[in-house]
Amino acid sequence: MRTRTPFPRKLDLVKGQIEMTHGSGGKLMAQLVEQLFAAAFDNRYLNQRNDQALLDPPPGRLVMTTDGYVVSPLFFPGGDIGSLAVHGTVNDVAMAGARPLYLSAGFILEEGFPLADLKRVVDSMAKAAMAAGVPIVTGDTKVVERGKGDGVFITTTGVGVVPPGVTPPTGDRARPGDVVLVNGSLGDHGVAILSTREGLSFETTIESDSAALHTLVASMVEVCPDLHVLRDPTRGGLATTLNEIAWQSGVGVRLVEAAIPIKPQVAAACELLGIDPLYVANEGKLLAICAPEDADRVLAAMRRHPLGTAAAKVGTVVQDDNGFVQLETSFGGSRVLDWLVGEQLPRIC
Amino acid sequence: MRTRTPFPRKLDLVKGQIEMTHGSGGKLMAQLVEQLFAAAFDNRYLNQRNDQALLDPPPGRLVMTTDGYVVSPLFFPGGDIGSLAVHGTVNDVAMAGARPLYLSAGFILEEGFPLADLKRVVDSMAKAAMAAGVPIVTGDTKVVERGKGDGVFITTTGVGVVPPGVTPPTGDRARPGDVVLVNGSLGDHGVAILSTREGLSFETTIESDSAALHTLVASMVEVCPDLHVLRDPTRGGLATTLNEIAWQSGVGVRLVEAAIPIKPQVAAACELLGIDPLYVANEGKLLAICAPEDADRVLAAMRRHPLGTAAAKVGTVVQDDNGFVQLETSFGGSRVLDWLVGEQLPRIC
Repeated sequence: MRTRTPFPRKLDLVKGQIEMTHGSGGKLMAQLVEQLFAAAFDNRYLNQRNDQALLDPPPGRLVMTTDGYVVSPLFFPGGDIGSLAVHGTVNDVAMAGARPLYLSAGFILEEGFPLADLKRVVDSMAKAAMAAGVPIVTGDTKVVERGKGDGVFITTTGVGVVPPGVTPPTGDRARPGDVVLVNGSLGDHGVAILSTREGLSFETTIESDSAALHTLVASMVEVCPDLHVLRDPTRGGLATTLNEIAWQSGVGVRLVEAAIPIKPQVAAACELLGIDPLYVANEGKLLAICAPEDADRVLAAMRRHPLGTAAAKVGTVVQDDNGFVQLETSFGGSRVLDWLVGEQLPRIC
Repeated sequence: MRTRTPFPRKLDLVKGQIEMTHGSGGKLMAQLVEQLFAAAFDNRYLNQRNDQALLDPPPGRLVMTTDGYVVSPLFFPGGDIGSLAVHGTVNDVAMAGARPLYLSAGFILEEGFPLADLKRVVDSMAKAAMAAGVPIVTGDTKVVERGKGDGVFITTTGVGVVPPGVTPPTGDRARPGDVVLVNGSLGDHGVAILSTREGLSFETTIESDSAALHTLVASMVEVCPDLHVLRDPTRGGLATTLNEIAWQSGVGVRLVEAAIPIKPQVAAACELLGIDPLYVANEGKLLAICAPEDADRVLAAMRRHPLGTAAAKVGTVVQDDNGFVQLETSFGGSRVLDWLVGEQLPRIC
C-alpha cells in the first residue's frame, strides 16, 4: 500500500516561497500540508487526514470560540503570530471556565511568503499547542495573490468543555459588591508590539505577555466554581473590557489606580507615546469578577500559579444604571474610563 | 439596566466603509458586531455575547472542521462568499456522516471595504445558516490596512455529531469492489466563477452548485449507516479528490467517462478554456464510496433528494498498489487521471 509517493519535488523550507499552486487543492498543496503542517502538528486526530476530525470529548457543556490573527509584525519580542493564535484561542475557551480540548487552524497565505517564515510560525504554533496540551486537530490552507494579503493570517477555533460542577462565568453576571481581580501587570503585549513598529523609535526590554491561561483558570475554578465573570482584556485593554462587562451586566465598576499593576517600563513607554496603558492590549492576562466572600481565596489561588504571582484586587463592581467604569486616581480624584473610540494600536493581535 | 447606549453614531450601511477602528476592540467594533453581525446571525448562542459560546450537543462522536474562504469575486452566479462559507463548512462536517450543529465565523476585513457589500455577505451567510438549520454561534472580526487584504476573507469552523449507529466514513476505507457514486453534474461551481473573471470572455448561464448537503447525507446514512467514504470534490475536482482517497486507502479507482454527469454548457466552457472538468471545483457535490451490495439502495436514496436527482454510479474501486485513478474513455481507451499539479483556478473558494 502507498508505494507511490505523490510528491516528486522536495519542499524547500529554506529558500522556497508560497506559490499560488500551494492553494490549488492539488499535489503541491497536499505536500505543504503533509510535510509542513501535519509534520509539525502531528497528533492522532489530525493524522486521520480527512477534511474534518473525529473527536471524543468528555461530558460537559461544550464551549466554542474563534479568533482571527493579523498581528503585525509576525514576529515580536516574546512571541509570534503562531504562539499568539494558540494562546488567544485557548484563553477564550478558558474564559468560560472551560477546559480547552481541541483547536483548528485556518491559514490564509500570501503568494511569495517565505516557507522558512511559515515553518517558524508553524513550529511555534506546534510548540505552544504541545505546551498547552491542546492538539490542533484539523486545518485549512488558502493562498491569495501577492498584494492581496500580508504574509500569513491565522484563524484558530477552540472547543472545550465546562467541567461538571462549574458554573460558567459570563459577562452578564457582575453584581454590585463583586470584586475585580487581575492576574498581573497590564499593557505588556501592546507595548512590545509597538516597540517593533517602524517610525516609533523607542527601546524597551518589555516582552509580550502572551501565554495560555487555562491552567491558571483551572486552579481558580477549583477554589471557586462560581466565578461571576472571566475575560481576557485583549484589544481595547482593561478599560474597554470592563466597559463591555458593565454594559452586559447593567452595573458600574470602580477601579483603584494605585492597585493596578503596571510595569514602570510600560508606564514610561505609554507616557512617551501619549497612550493610556489601561487601553493597551494584553495576551496573557485575565480579569476575574467574583463575590466578595470568594475574592481572597481566588486571589491566593492565582498567586500560587506561575502566571498569577503578581495578581491583584483592582476594583469593585457598583450599582450604576449608566454603566460607567470609573478610576479613582492616585491623587484622590476620579475619572470615567469610556470605551476605546479611536484606533489606538492597529493589528495588535 | 443598559440605559446608556454605547453607540452614538449610526452605522451607515449604505455609504459607510470599513475603517481601521472597526478592528480596534473599541466602541465602533462593538457597534459593527451588534448592528451588523449579531443582528443578522441572531440566535440564542450568539446572544450570550461572550467571547465564546456555551453549547449543548447531543451525544455522539464530535466532528470538527475549518475552512478559509478567499473566493474572488465575492459575488458570483449562484452564490457569494457568505453562502459558500456556510455551505462548505456544513458539508465538511456532513462528509463524516455527521449532523452539523454549530458554526463559528471569523472575518478579516480590508480597510475601505463598503459596509453595504459586507451587509450583503453577512445577510447571505445568515440566510444560508438559517436554511441549513445550523446557527453561527460565535465569531470574530479583524481589520487590515488597505492593500493588505482583499475585501473580506471568512474562516468558518463547524462542529457536529455522528449519530449513534453510524460508522463515520473516512478516506482510508475504500476497498476493491466498492462502488463510486456522485450526486450530480460536475464542474458547475468552477465554471461559474471562471465566467466572472476579467479577461476570460465567455458567456454561460451556468450557476454555482453551492449547496448544503447535510440533509442529503442524512438520507444516505439512513439507508446505509456504513458508507465507506464521503467527500466533497472541491478544489482539484473529482480527479484530485479520488487521488487523495486512493492514496489514503491504498487502492486504485476506475471511472467510466460516459457515466460521469457533466452539463453540456460546462463541457463546452471547459473545452474553450482548455481545462478538464474532472479537475474543476464543485461546491454542492459529494462523492460516496460504498460496498457493492449497498450501492443501489444509496443511489435510490440520493435520487429521491432534491440535491441528488442526477446522482450516478461513476466507477469502482480496484486493487492497485500504485493508487492510480484511471478513466475508461468513451472511445474505449483508458488514461490515468493524476493529481492536479498546476494551478488551474486560483481562489475558487
